[in-house]
Amino acid sequence: MTVKIGVIGCGAIGLEHIKRITNTLSGGKIVAVNDINENNAKKIIADLHLDAKFYADGHELIRSADVDAVLVTCWGPAHKEFVLEAVKQKKYVFCEKPLATTADDCLEIVEEEMKQKKHLVQVGFMRRFDEGYVALKKTIDEGQIGAPLILHAAHRNPAVDEKYTTDMAINDTMIHEIDVLHWLLDDEYISAQVIYPRKTGNASSHLADPQIVLVETKKGIRIDVEIFVNCKYGYDIKCEVVGEDGIAYLPEPATVQTRQKAALNRPILMDWKQRFIKAYDYEIQAFINNINKGQKLNGPTSWDGYAAALTADVCVQAQQNPGKILPIKMKDRPDFYK
Amino acid sequence: MTVKIGVIGCGAIGLEHIKRITNTLSGGKIVAVNDINENNAKKIIADLHLDAKFYADGHELIRSADVDAVLVTCWGPAHKEFVLEAVKQKKYVFCEKPLATTADDCLEIVEEEMKQKKHLVQVGFMRRFDEGYVALKKTIDEGQIGAPLILHAAHRNPAVDEKYTTDMAINDTMIHEIDVLHWLLDDEYISAQVIYPRKTGNASSHLADPQIVLVETKKGIRIDVEIFVNCKYGYDIKCEVVGEDGIAYLPEPATVQTRQKAALNRPILMDWKQRFIKAYDYEIQAFINNINKGQKLNGPTSWDGYAAALTADVCVQAQQNPGKILPIKMKDRPDFYK
Amino acid sequence: MTVKIGVIGCGAIGLEHIKRITNTLSGGKIVAVNDINENNAKKIIADLHLDAKFYADGHELIRSADVDAVLVTCWGPAHKEFVLEAVKQKKYVFCEKPLATTADDCLEIVEEEMKQKKHLVQVGFMRRFDEGYVALKKTIDEGQIGAPLILHAAHRNPAVDEKYTTDMAINDTMIHEIDVLHWLLDDEYISAQVIYPRKTGNASSHLADPQIVLVETKKGIRIDVEIFVNCKYGYDIKCEVVGEDGIAYLPEPATVQTRQKAALNRPILMDWKQRFIKAYDYEIQAFINNINKGQKLNGPTSWDGYAAALTADVCVQAQQNPGKILPIKMKDRPDFYK
Amino acid sequence: MTVKIGVIGCGAIGLEHIKRITNTLSGGKIVAVNDINENNAKKIIADLHLDAKFYADGHELIRSADVDAVLVTCWGPAHKEFVLEAVKQKKYVFCEKPLATTADDCLEIVEEEMKQKKHLVQVGFMRRFDEGYVALKKTIDEGQIGAPLILHAAHRNPAVDEKYTTDMAINDTMIHEIDVLHWLLDDEYISAQVIYPRKTGNASSHLADPQIVLVETKKGIRIDVEIFVNCKYGYDIKCEVVGEDGIAYLPEPATVQTRQKAALNRPILMDWKQRFIKAYDYEIQAFINNINKGQKLNGPTSWDGYAAALTADVCVQAQQNPGKILPIKMKDRPDFYK
Ligand SMILES: NC(=O)c1ccc[n+]([C@@H]2O[C@H](COP(=O)([O-])OP(=O)(O)OC[C@H]3O[C@@H](n4cnc5c(N)ncnc54)[C@H](O)[C@@H]3O)[C@@H](O)[C@H]2O)c1
Ligand SMILES: NC(=O)c1ccc[n+]([C@@H]2O[C@H](COP(=O)([O-])OP(=O)(O)OC[C@H]3O[C@@H](n4cnc5c(N)ncnc54)[C@H](O)[C@@H]3O)[C@@H](O)[C@H]2O)c1
Ligand SMILES: NC(=O)c1ccc[n+]([C@@H]2O[C@H](COP(=O)([O-])OP(=O)(O)OC[C@H]3O[C@@H](n4cnc5c(N)ncnc54)[C@H](O)[C@@H]3O)[C@@H](O)[C@H]2O)c1
Ligand SMILES: NC(=O)c1ccc[n+]([C@@H]2O[C@H](COP(=O)([O-])OP(=O)(O)OC[C@H]3O[C@@H](n4cnc5c(N)ncnc54)[C@H](O)[C@@H]3O)[C@@H](O)[C@H]2O)c1
Repeated sequence: MTVKIGVIGCGAIGLEHIKRITNTLSGGKIVAVNDINENNAKKIIADLHLDAKFYADGHELIRSADVDAVLVTCWGPAHKEFVLEAVKQKKYVFCEKPLATTADDCLEIVEEEMKQKKHLVQVGFMRRFDEGYVALKKTIDEGQIGAPLILHAAHRNPAVDEKYTTDMAINDTMIHEIDVLHWLLDDEYISAQVIYPRKTGNASSHLADPQIVLVETKKGIRIDVEIFVNCKYGYDIKCEVVGEDGIAYLPEPATVQTRQKAALNRPILMDWKQRFIKAYDYEIQAFINNINKGQKLNGPTSWDGYAAALTADVCVQAQQNPGKILPIKMKDRPDFYK
Repeated sequence: MTVKIGVIGCGAIGLEHIKRITNTLSGGKIVAVNDINENNAKKIIADLHLDAKFYADGHELIRSADVDAVLVTCWGPAHKEFVLEAVKQKKYVFCEKPLATTADDCLEIVEEEMKQKKHLVQVGFMRRFDEGYVALKKTIDEGQIGAPLILHAAHRNPAVDEKYTTDMAINDTMIHEIDVLHWLLDDEYISAQVIYPRKTGNASSHLADPQIVLVETKKGIRIDVEIFVNCKYGYDIKCEVVGEDGIAYLPEPATVQTRQKAALNRPILMDWKQRFIKAYDYEIQAFINNINKGQKLNGPTSWDGYAAALTADVCVQAQQNPGKILPIKMKDRPDFYK
Repeated sequence: MTVKIGVIGCGAIGLEHIKRITNTLSGGKIVAVNDINENNAKKIIADLHLDAKFYADGHELIRSADVDAVLVTCWGPAHKEFVLEAVKQKKYVFCEKPLATTADDCLEIVEEEMKQKKHLVQVGFMRRFDEGYVALKKTIDEGQIGAPLILHAAHRNPAVDEKYTTDMAINDTMIHEIDVLHWLLDDEYISAQVIYPRKTGNASSHLADPQIVLVETKKGIRIDVEIFVNCKYGYDIKCEVVGEDGIAYLPEPATVQTRQKAALNRPILMDWKQRFIKAYDYEIQAFINNINKGQKLNGPTSWDGYAAALTADVCVQAQQNPGKILPIKMKDRPDFYK
Repeated sequence: MTVKIGVIGCGAIGLEHIKRITNTLSGGKIVAVNDINENNAKKIIADLHLDAKFYADGHELIRSADVDAVLVTCWGPAHKEFVLEAVKQKKYVFCEKPLATTADDCLEIVEEEMKQKKHLVQVGFMRRFDEGYVALKKTIDEGQIGAPLILHAAHRNPAVDEKYTTDMAINDTMIHEIDVLHWLLDDEYISAQVIYPRKTGNASSHLADPQIVLVETKKGIRIDVEIFVNCKYGYDIKCEVVGEDGIAYLPEPATVQTRQKAALNRPILMDWKQRFIKAYDYEIQAFINNINKGQKLNGPTSWDGYAAALTADVCVQAQQNPGKILPIKMKDRPDFYK
């Protein structure tokens, strides 16, 4: 069987997903495309020789009988309406992060999904499909390091542009740690604190960079995340889990080691797009395969979308109250999402 | 477009390729299947719900108008007849290694292919599609280490069974180094010598293990390959290229590092099948994509199949004359294969 | 010239220092020995064939014309009186950490030393003489990573006994980080906060383990120190300095890497005594050499002893007020110690 | 007790040894100095404020009642006469490598030493005292990797000057591997073969560089040593021992790892003098300590000096007969040296 897919939003990531479904992955086909920028969407259909129809209205696309599943890849503020529509139509929907721009909007989707009594939503937090994180989770779950107690993480970018603001360190950068770490630890967040180290001379004047976010979980695990978006040296993701019996590290990408010019060295990526490039393939392939086999989706759920949104909100407040420990008051997780 | 593929030989690797084309890769479809074991072939069609026809005769399968391209994955001695037939029918053919069991038989295929004036054959030396080797080749080709002078390689297996004989160290094990190293160095082999180190107590009585094969190239590069098929500790592939300005190493698989029990450690694979698992996907995907786009095949050619067969023959003779340096008298590479 | 040394306190570390001065180092000689345990001190003189006199009174030993320099290696509460005496006598004194048990007592020594207008005191914080820290400091001071912004540290012990209490995590364990890190960063501490992660099941019931101490410096650098004294896997010291242009790591001890039993691994020490074993040699050799050459002592000063004591005090208060950021109100550093 | 030491030859290494005995090590004192360059020797006495007498004649120095032990650090051709004299006088002698310039001369010393029935000679192959090699030997001797089967080594230098000739690759460079590897493996050499890889463009026209020397041991272990003295990137020593159950590697020096400029990197030394700098301390300290304690010397013996000389001779012949396997016909090791 082939899953017939409609795409809403053909910008940067939308186009990437269209290409991977068409050229790389198996079992899915782009049959419908929508974007408020009609010309661009049509150009993509033509350029990639897609056997797909353009829809001027995203809601119409969702309701079309031709469409089995929807990809919501338009800009964030429009996610909620399309995801909600898809759920109401009982159609599978893959929504790029964020699920919605507020925790309350996320909850609305959660409730609609529970009403439909079916897991229909997958959120685009692709790190859960990264082989490194998967292997790290396996190491933890096998009990190799005992119960996790502390997690040291870092999210480093070589540079960001002028438009990048302090809150984006949470909403655009750390958001990926927010999602992946509670999944990794099988836990939930209960408080957050932000502290500001000495500022790098390489950041724009309005930006606090680096930052350290300290998060506590229900089980008492303490997470520290260094966010450093003008670190210059490379795009680098660190995750070190300290357990009762040992420590486990997120693998670094396998690169060619050399001995050159008085040094043993291994390249570090400069471009974040390369770091999790395969995880994008795997998340979409999993989405397609699970639909095809009638299995439950195994990626981030709409509940995870809500948890991420709420946690990010508190972290942003914590940014505004440096040194203060703020509670993260999450609703009880419904059985439906356990 | 979808490449319609016929498979001859549904044993271990044949089945793997059928599965990946059907479930993982894009742009290809299994439409025809042949095996001398009819029941097994039919069972595979049924189990995997293939929309494919069984052919009792491999030659008929090749000639069928339904079939665009052929996968020859039956046992080695039967490769030649099917590849030759496919070439004569001007059909693309992916042949598992070896291309044929003798260098002369390989040459026959080479000549037929040149007669057809079209590159139709890809041999299943998958390491050329391994990301590690590709990155290593890029490092060399970019000139980071200057002109290569020496290459130290090792091919280690935890254990082999009683049926594994001394010559298989060349024909089944080192054959992958034989293919991939001359591609990596963009060079050709001119001599070989075998030396036998102290034998491990873990090998069966009839088997010389480990062995060291010393190979010289046209450019004067010296290659030493340690073959150790009862090394116990893991499946491990080493490739270190010493150049005028530096050294480059084949990356090791990215695994989870831990600190546990008084050691910093990283797992090493025990199962060879896992080591190049993605390279199989990539070689077949490249085969399909190149056909689909009307591009020249970019994998190992029938000439490479001949070069591997001839080199392996000399290495086996060198095994029988330990310490002797034997010449590898390869024919001149025709322009067609440059 | 040979520096004639008197030792006060011949317990574990006192004996070690006597041995290294006698058997390993150059330029010094043990000529006088004191301990409240007379038998033990005399036994050491006899066993090691020392050409040394026993003194029943430490103060008399200090004042003896035979003694050029004093080693104070008795238990902590007695350090102050002997150091003070030595300074008053204008004799060089090497005092094991702590300089004194309170910050005020340390200040008394500082003042006496300033009165003497001569640098006479070296405190036994040996890490400053560890080749790893020295190399790390050089890397930072050369500007390789730009201005330091964040420092991530960890101090891990496989296990501690029942007598180890929560405050000892500061006073006996982290005290070494307290000294070495401000030297490394050429900076001073201004605040501290303690947070308690989930407790390991391997710690005794009365002990909080692990702990995280967050320290801020005058320049704004943020330091986080994980103290984990029942980590099981090994004695392990981590120091990662994040700068504007890059990151530098404290080297790990050079140990034999192996490939064994499906893993690439390197041993980690279990015994803390081995970790900085050479640094003890180097600190005492430097003490002797500087005296011999009439050079200024280059180890931790009495001011550093004061800074460590004060910082440790605030950290212990911070332990009692988890989550609270407490100020470290250090006196202004006198020019004498700049 | 203090060992009173006389030094014959105050060139580069002689001066180094004088300095370390005087300033760094314990238990020895320079009391006598000789060099054909009288001015230089006297200048050293003066500059270092040595309490030592100048001898115009090395033999007289050896015979002087003031001298307990002799260091022979003059140029190679003069080693034999002084070592022989010392042995005849039953004085301990530390001789820089080589023991003598021919295997026969070495044997003469061996015989004289046996006649004296006392182990008096230590040869200056310092690598046996390097902590890395010692740890590697321990790993092997503990049986962690099972019986050794193969050893891959490399000796790389950034560059050599015009005066460096092809045979020096054996006599000055690989000589250290020749000594240390048979000690490491507790074995003896029985044959050697040299092969010449493609030559680097960075070597002078008369020099073959790199070279590969293949050596076989009595137990059947196969050793390959890559000698590459214009490798440009650094001074780098590699030793990888392949055993029945695993592999062990010589540790690399512990250096500061950084993340900088798109790379994870660790410095490699450029200056060979730094690589084994501590091993020089340890070999001389061991020499002094063993004399002081009346223990048998535990460094390379005169027999080892003979074994190195003979092996080097055969390797040089093998250089002249590339590809030929030449036998190394060593005399039977006398019980005295077992
Ligand atoms: N998972 C990741 O790592 C990752 C990476 C990049 C982007 N994203 C997310 O993907 C989303 C899209 O990001 P992008 O980089 O592709 O942005 P983009 O600006 O390149 O593309 C957004 C597209 O949406 C279209 N669009 C906007 N409003 C629409 C509407 N109401 N209906 C239909 N189309 C509409 C725009 O015309 C544009 O083509 C964002 O939510 C972003 O956070 C996720
Ligand atoms: N590239 C690699 O890493 C790799 C790995 C494994 C196998 N191979 C190669 O693949 C080939 C197959 O290996 P395998 O492990 O799958 O073997 P296998 O024995 O499992 O399967 C061989 C199949 O071929 C069938 N067969 C034999 N003769 C036939 C004929 N004349 N016509 C049709 N079918 C016939 C058999 O019935 C069997 O099903 C071999 O040449 C082997 O060297 C390559
Ligand atoms: N730098 C380090 O890493 C390090 C390591 C160990 C100990 N230390 C420090 O060294 C000091 C000694 O520790 P230790 O482990 O050797 O303890 P210890 O208990 O083994 O030895 C202390 C000795 O001091 C003697 N002593 C006590 N009071 C005395 C007095 N008034 N006059 C003379 N002698 C007296 C005791 O009899 C005993 O022999 C402590 O301050 C400790 O913190 C530092
Ligand atoms: N173990 C090592 O790593 C190592 C390193 C360097 C040198 N060496 C060895 O040490 C020896 C000396 O090397 P170097 O680099 O110091 O050389 P050098 O040329 O710097 O010094 C040699 C000294 O010996 C003196 N000399 C020569 N003949 C003499 C004689 N008959 N009597 C007294 N003095 C005499 C010379 O005047 C000179 O001062 C050589 O054998 C060399 O192979 C070993």
